[in-house]
Amino acid sequence: MSDHVYKKIELVGSSPKSIEEAVENALERARKTIRNMRWFEVAETRGFIEDGKVDHWQVTLKVGFTLDK
Amino acid sequence: MSDHVYKKIELVGSSPKSIEEAVENALERARKTIRNMRWFEVAETRGFIEDGKVDHWQVTLKVGFTLDK
Amino acid sequence: MSDHVYKKIELVGSSPKSIEEAVENALERARKTIRNMRWFEVAETRGFIEDGKVDHWQVTLKVGFTLDK
Amino acid sequence: MSDHVYKKIELVGSSPKSIEEAVENALERARKTIRNMRWFEVAETRGFIEDGKVDHWQVTLKVGFTLDK
Amino acid sequence: MSDHVYKKIELVGSSPKSIEEAVENALERARKTIRNMRWFEVAETRGFIEDGKVDHWQVTLKVGFTLDK
Amino acid sequence: MSDHVYKKIELVGSSPKSIEEAVENALERARKTIRNMRWFEVAETRGFIEDGKVDHWQVTLKVGFTLDK
Amino acid sequence: MSDHVYKKIELVGSSPKSIEEAVENALERARKTIRNMRWFEVAETRGFIEDGKVDHWQVTLKVGFTLDK
Amino acid sequence: MSDHVYKKIELVGSSPKSIEEAVENALERARKTIRNMRWFEVAETRGFIEDGKVDHWQVTLKVGFTLDK
Amino acid sequence: MSDHVYKKIELVGSSPKSIEEAVENALERARKTIRNMRWFEVAETRGFIEDGKVDHWQVTLKVGFTLDK
Amino acid sequence: MSDHVYKKIELVGSSPKSIEEAVENALERARKTIRNMRWFEVAETRGFIEDGKVDHWQVTLKVGFTLDK
Amino acid sequence: MSDHVYKKIELVGSSPKSIEEAVENALERARKTIRNMRWFEVAETRGFIEDGKVDHWQVTLKVGFTLDK
Amino acid sequence: MSDHVYKKIELVGSSPKSIEEAVENALERARKTIRNMRWFEVAETRGFIEDGKVDHWQVTLKVGFTLDK
Repeated sequence: MSDHVYKKIELVGSSPKSIEEAVENALERARKTIRNMRWFEVAETRGFIEDGKVDHWQVTLKVGFTLDK
Repeated sequence: MSDHVYKKIELVGSSPKSIEEAVENALERARKTIRNMRWFEVAETRGFIEDGKVDHWQVTLKVGFTLDK
Repeated sequence: MSDHVYKKIELVGSSPKSIEEAVENALERARKTIRNMRWFEVAETRGFIEDGKVDHWQVTLKVGFTLDK
Repeated sequence: MSDHVYKKIELVGSSPKSIEEAVENALERARKTIRNMRWFEVAETRGFIEDGKVDHWQVTLKVGFTLDK
Repeated sequence: MSDHVYKKIELVGSSPKSIEEAVENALERARKTIRNMRWFEVAETRGFIEDGKVDHWQVTLKVGFTLDK
Repeated sequence: MSDHVYKKIELVGSSPKSIEEAVENALERARKTIRNMRWFEVAETRGFIEDGKVDHWQVTLKVGFTLDK
Repeated sequence: MSDHVYKKIELVGSSPKSIEEAVENALERARKTIRNMRWFEVAETRGFIEDGKVDHWQVTLKVGFTLDK
Repeated sequence: MSDHVYKKIELVGSSPKSIEEAVENALERARKTIRNMRWFEVAETRGFIEDGKVDHWQVTLKVGFTLDK
Repeated sequence: MSDHVYKKIELVGSSPKSIEEAVENALERARKTIRNMRWFEVAETRGFIEDGKVDHWQVTLKVGFTLDK
Repeated sequence: MSDHVYKKIELVGSSPKSIEEAVENALERARKTIRNMRWFEVAETRGFIEDGKVDHWQVTLKVGFTLDK
Repeated sequence: MSDHVYKKIELVGSSPKSIEEAVENALERARKTIRNMRWFEVAETRGFIEDGKVDHWQVTLKVGFTLDK
Repeated sequence: MSDHVYKKIELVGSSPKSIEEAVENALERARKTIRNMRWFEVAETRGFIEDGKVDHWQVTLKVGFTLDK
């Protein structure tokens, strides 16, 4: 692990249900094109409101993945 | 949407169960007096402990709503 | 409460399921040696990824507890 | 000035043209209900994009005003 | 306490004498219209200078109060 | 909008004239390769000086765009 | 001093009177178990309110002390 | 450029018209006594309000200049 | 006031007694060489400890003063 | 330089030896696919520990590069 | 690794030679009493000056270690 | 030491070799005009890239020095 180089990208995922699902939804989309995702960091948690209730959560996360040599 | 003016207020909601429910509880109280709430941003997540367990979650959120013209 | 002195320590808890459970797991371990825990503040939320999915959540929290006189 | 008490509120103003106009638009709405606004601080500058161009600027500002005695 | 909703507002208090008195002066004005203030957080400490000496202190604080149900 | 996933990238645009034009210039370049740009956030405003005057403004912005499903 | 190793801990002290006394109260408790405290940094200043007045100040400080060799 | 040493100073410029002009006004004053100004960074944007309108903008900037050898 | 240019410098003042006196001591030294000091902002509050008690407070402040035309 | 547009990406480089080498290792990998890298900013410095010693340094950096017109 | 609980402590290490050695010196002292140190994060880099040269570097780091079950 | 007043200035030093040397180079230039420099704090670490390699490091530091009485 000591000679790896990682890249970090910033994604925003959404979910009507929970913060956790918003993260999972972002990863689900990202894994279609990115291999070797290793970790994420939650950078921001927001949400949109309809009729005075949470319509959906919106979580900004940074995702780190290994760059192939 | 380009000519709207919004106001943001800061609320703290509580829940014995989850971060999400603490946000919902804050919105439930706020919608009694505020119309047109549009989005929120989670600013701080804390909690209180009883007997070594989470007694309740306490989430500080900023809520943005449209000001009537 | 006005004459208490508190100490705050920083812990990292993990859970395959949720942010809330990661906090509970950190407290469960901490209460074996620390009495009088009173509150916590979530400082950082991260997670590890396996096969493009969240493997486990990792939450850094600061825990405040009363120092005995 | 040394015995004044001020309140600060957070507003978001919009403009298709400039950051400055977004601030002015927020103040224009605010002065309908708030007397004695004294200063503002720009907290965040964002914007929305249509067809690859700025559709409108959106500026979050904190506005300080004197509370009547 | 686990089912309360709080609102936080931002005030600026002044005093020629001390940081503490600037906070007290802000609260003195606020309690005329706000019931159930519970805690405050000092956000910023500044001051104005006359003839090379502190003329008055100016403290920005966030005040949390319980919203009636 | 509740099931979208967005990616955010960081760009730096320049302009001899204004902050606004520096942002527009960054977007003009970005739209050649990125579809569905939705919003931006100004992260940093700087500039270079020649002969004691602003030679050009340099604005760092984060741009969010929808990832195709 | 160039070969010392220090540890920093985080304490919260309280006082009905002043920020300074809240710090002193935290140190008074800490010196019962910690030798060689050298410096502190004020991290956060808060307070609790009763009847619209400051009931007690609460100051979070980081305290650095020399680790014995 | 690799062996230069720079000094950075903090200035506040004002303008009734725009953020850009406030920066230019600060540089205009600074170039009377400082040679070799190279870049600036906007640290804070504020303004003063008269009659509910922006009276003047006030921009805090850090200016970097080369120290003569 | 709308056409003034200010410079801000950073000072550290000390006092065995209080935060306020540490600021006053910094200003007392600064006014020997700086005219037209207008305001200050407290940036950092620290202190040194002797025998488990505060030996002296050390306050970092930014001081703004008018540049002569 | 006044009409360039730059993109900034975030990389994490590792080295058993030093912070500087961790940065060089990240750049060495990045230059295989990115042309015209111009500058970097160190965002975070961490490391992993084995047997109580630094096993390898891990440096997060933002790298800016010119976008071709 | 998904069911571990970590504690993080804050240390300050010193070295006349380099940032890296200051970190190593802090770890060397810490491993006398702490088992299972896993990672560190550099929080602050400072130094003391004698005769206009660096006398020693002083690095504040947070160290994470596994809590035994 | 309890009655000293310090001034802090911000410098940027460069070095093709290391972060440490960039700091030393800034101090070497500063000691030509400033007496009694006591400490420094690293505020920012950056670098410039040529041909995909670090051309030189650029470190922003704040330097504190005693003001003569």
